[in-house]
Amino acid sequence: MKPNTFRAHAHELVDWMADFLEQLEEHRVVPETKPGDIRAQLPSSAPQQGEPFSQIFADFQSTILPGMTLWNHPGWFAYFPANHSPPSILAEMLMATLGAQCMSWQTSPAATELEQVVMQWLRELLQLPETFVGTIQDTASSSTLVALLSARERVTSFQFGQKGPTGLDDKALCVYASKETHSSIDKAVKLAGIGLDHLRHVETDADFALCPEALEQAIREDLQRGHRPFCVVATVGTTSSSALDPLPAIGAICQKYDLWLHVDAAYAGTAAILPEKRALLDGIEYADSFVFNPHKWMFTNFDCSAYFVKDVDLLLRTFQTNPEYLKTEYDPQVVNFRDWGIPLGRRFRALKLWFVMRHYGVEGLQDLIRQHIRWAGELVTWIEADPDFECLAPAPLGLVCFRYHPAGCDDEVMLDRYNQTLLERINATGSCHLTHTRLGGKYTIRLCVGQLYTQREHVVKAWELCKQIVQEGLE
Amino acid sequence: MKPNTFRAHAHELVDWMADFLEQLEEHRVVPETKPGDIRAQLPSSAPQQGEPFSQIFADFQSTILPGMTLWNHPGWFAYFPANHSPPSILAEMLMATLGAQCMSWQTSPAATELEQVVMQWLRELLQLPETFVGTIQDTASSSTLVALLSARERVTSFQFGQKGPTGLDDKALCVYASKETHSSIDKAVKLAGIGLDHLRHVETDADFALCPEALEQAIREDLQRGHRPFCVVATVGTTSSSALDPLPAIGAICQKYDLWLHVDAAYAGTAAILPEKRALLDGIEYADSFVFNPHKWMFTNFDCSAYFVKDVDLLLRTFQTNPEYLKTEYDPQVVNFRDWGIPLGRRFRALKLWFVMRHYGVEGLQDLIRQHIRWAGELVTWIEADPDFECLAPAPLGLVCFRYHPAGCDDEVMLDRYNQTLLERINATGSCHLTHTRLGGKYTIRLCVGQLYTQREHVVKAWELCKQIVQEGLE
Repeated sequence: MKPNTFRAHAHELVDWMADFLEQLEEHRVVPETKPGDIRAQLPSSAPQQGEPFSQIFADFQSTILPGMTLWNHPGWFAYFPANHSPPSILAEMLMATLGAQCMSWQTSPAATELEQVVMQWLRELLQLPETFVGTIQDTASSSTLVALLSARERVTSFQFGQKGPTGLDDKALCVYASKETHSSIDKAVKLAGIGLDHLRHVETDADFALCPEALEQAIREDLQRGHRPFCVVATVGTTSSSALDPLPAIGAICQKYDLWLHVDAAYAGTAAILPEKRALLDGIEYADSFVFNPHKWMFTNFDCSAYFVKDVDLLLRTFQTNPEYLKTEYDPQVVNFRDWGIPLGRRFRALKLWFVMRHYGVEGLQDLIRQHIRWAGELVTWIEADPDFECLAPAPLGLVCFRYHPAGCDDEVMLDRYNQTLLERINATGSCHLTHTRLGGKYTIRLCVGQLYTQREHVVKAWELCKQIVQEGLE
Repeated sequence: MKPNTFRAHAHELVDWMADFLEQLEEHRVVPETKPGDIRAQLPSSAPQQGEPFSQIFADFQSTILPGMTLWNHPGWFAYFPANHSPPSILAEMLMATLGAQCMSWQTSPAATELEQVVMQWLRELLQLPETFVGTIQDTASSSTLVALLSARERVTSFQFGQKGPTGLDDKALCVYASKETHSSIDKAVKLAGIGLDHLRHVETDADFALCPEALEQAIREDLQRGHRPFCVVATVGTTSSSALDPLPAIGAICQKYDLWLHVDAAYAGTAAILPEKRALLDGIEYADSFVFNPHKWMFTNFDCSAYFVKDVDLLLRTFQTNPEYLKTEYDPQVVNFRDWGIPLGRRFRALKLWFVMRHYGVEGLQDLIRQHIRWAGELVTWIEADPDFECLAPAPLGLVCFRYHPAGCDDEVMLDRYNQTLLERINATGSCHLTHTRLGGKYTIRLCVGQLYTQREHVVKAWELCKQIVQEGLE
């Protein structure tokens, strides 16, 4: 495809893209596709001859698009958001065109240095300690695995050279996180070879936040068993309910027992750019590593996970390799981000973060986040004022956890069934999308306000829909 | 930014993008930027107020672009390529606009099913065994780590439940790869907690391919020591010289000793779409897992690594978590690719692979790959015909490893210095970019023909440049 043919097709796509963004709300959030529907429309082999782009694009519109779940629909209240934004899309267009592979400084000097700069901007925005140095990973799952591997390296290699955990003096390594911690912690513990039976899911309080007393108790018990506690993962904004683990108390325990503290604020971290919410991160000075995802609530296209760490030498000891074919003359003077995580190759993700922060400015980002928190707060007041609904957890940010609970009905099995039905019917309308969790064993509806295009009216509409479905009866 | 403002800016960008692609050759491949140059031009804090997009885009052009290494320049002969292509860029534009997060079937049904379809297309194109099932990872580093963790799970968990290697019966796990294996294998062994002292770098033959006899010998020695051999990584197309490890012999050894065989064909795999090169993968039926990167030589934007595995149940046992908040009604009927690798969140990478395969068609892709191999072959004949140059390894594909070796000079220190100077001077011209390695201790220049926009004339020009610089004297 010659540049001028590309130019024509790209202009055509841009018009489609702008129309799509304009008309997002006319689509269903989640399609009515059934398993196998899309696959059945696609040939089982690649074509021998090339096909006209017009045909490929037409098939995209007729076959793929109707099967897509639209994470950027204004009615998106599911999971945590995976936002994009116009400036971020524009940056992705340039990233794709540059086609840079940013493994080393020399393979993309500007990308490496821009990454250093935007990570410094983020550190300042969140008022993280100056000892933190940042890099962009793909997801919080990877960031947390990087943290856990670094923590493992710290405790094993100090004493046993390069032998890894299998060479450890027969003491079992133990990790601690709350019962409400994200599944990526379990996954990282498994992958790091620690073994799930050495991950302690510590008791939480009534607000689903980790109990520091229970944490210390668990650590002591493991020490008595002859195990080696080495890492605590604290969550600021759990996935189920955005519970906030108490960092100062957890940090003090980590300091006392010389444990690595990793703080997972994948969703909630963005809120710390608000002065009135910065207290979320009080105690962050105790942390050895910290992750939050600008691709969740900072309007930067997935993937963009911001990972901060204090001990860069240890990070390098954990991840660095230095084969001849990757050596460059500038290595002693520069940062090569390939040694800061798992993949060797890296996309130029810093560009989209730069575009987003400059386009909105700090105040623009703060205004958007504040709105989301305010609308979630309004929803809480409506729920609390309604005798047939109840909140099941505090809602300090944009996530509201609630259920239908008609006065007089205390049959938990029935309530679970009601709420499951309610959620299914809300989502079946296609106008908005909510997901669920279980809190204290109870089936809980999660509504997270955090999508860029969501306005107050969409929150109102979702709530009205809930009430209407309940009124029509859930039997 | 309203959709219509986005529309205007995006059209503006498209014209810039098309011009950029058209004028790629007018740029230097690697910029003259020095460490810190770019950073010095950027403010140390994020702006408080949003800035006009015109300013952001102007800064991109004046500050970022001049500091970028252009991986898609026709003079790119460095490392292995990280190709893009116009249809792939078009797909990235749509991917960014959809903003999908493809962790589960339900969070993007069409993305999941398209990924299944394109991976089936690739399996067929490469004539992989039908027992292989594919998924897209970000890089070969991650794919290899996934393979190694699966292999570790196979040997540890069968016997020791969920305990991981620390629970293994005191037998040290051992991994085998050639001395020429990629650094990502070392990294994966480290990260998987195996310990680098249990990675055996097996001897290679005169062509830098793994010696099966040496492999079996190493396995036997470890068994005699009471260790537990569990995984062999064979490389089809090593990074230094594109050496081809003999899969049939290695596979037979793996079968004999019940070892996981992972085949890393990150670069070379694409060549297997040529009938005349399919022999590269003879013996692939022995493999448990296989990776190759369409983002290297199949004109698909980075990142796109194709990972194939036979035992999906084992893969799931290694990577699956199943928290309440991720459960969907379709889980029993569908594939959730979040459980097939490390990250939870996933981009819609299948789209670009689909666009690329349909745009070029199988024959179009074959023609491009064939050209690259042919031009590399021509370069080999020129080098061999020149008394002052020599090839240092076979060149079965697009990579040519050579050095300046004037008749009569056998001082290896001097030759290393000459070739280092030669490489520096070639690259200093900015018209092309080559990298180096060491083969048998000798400083070796690598020239890899594999960039989409590279034509025969660019290979000729690079060779003429080499000869000219040598003629001008390397003192």
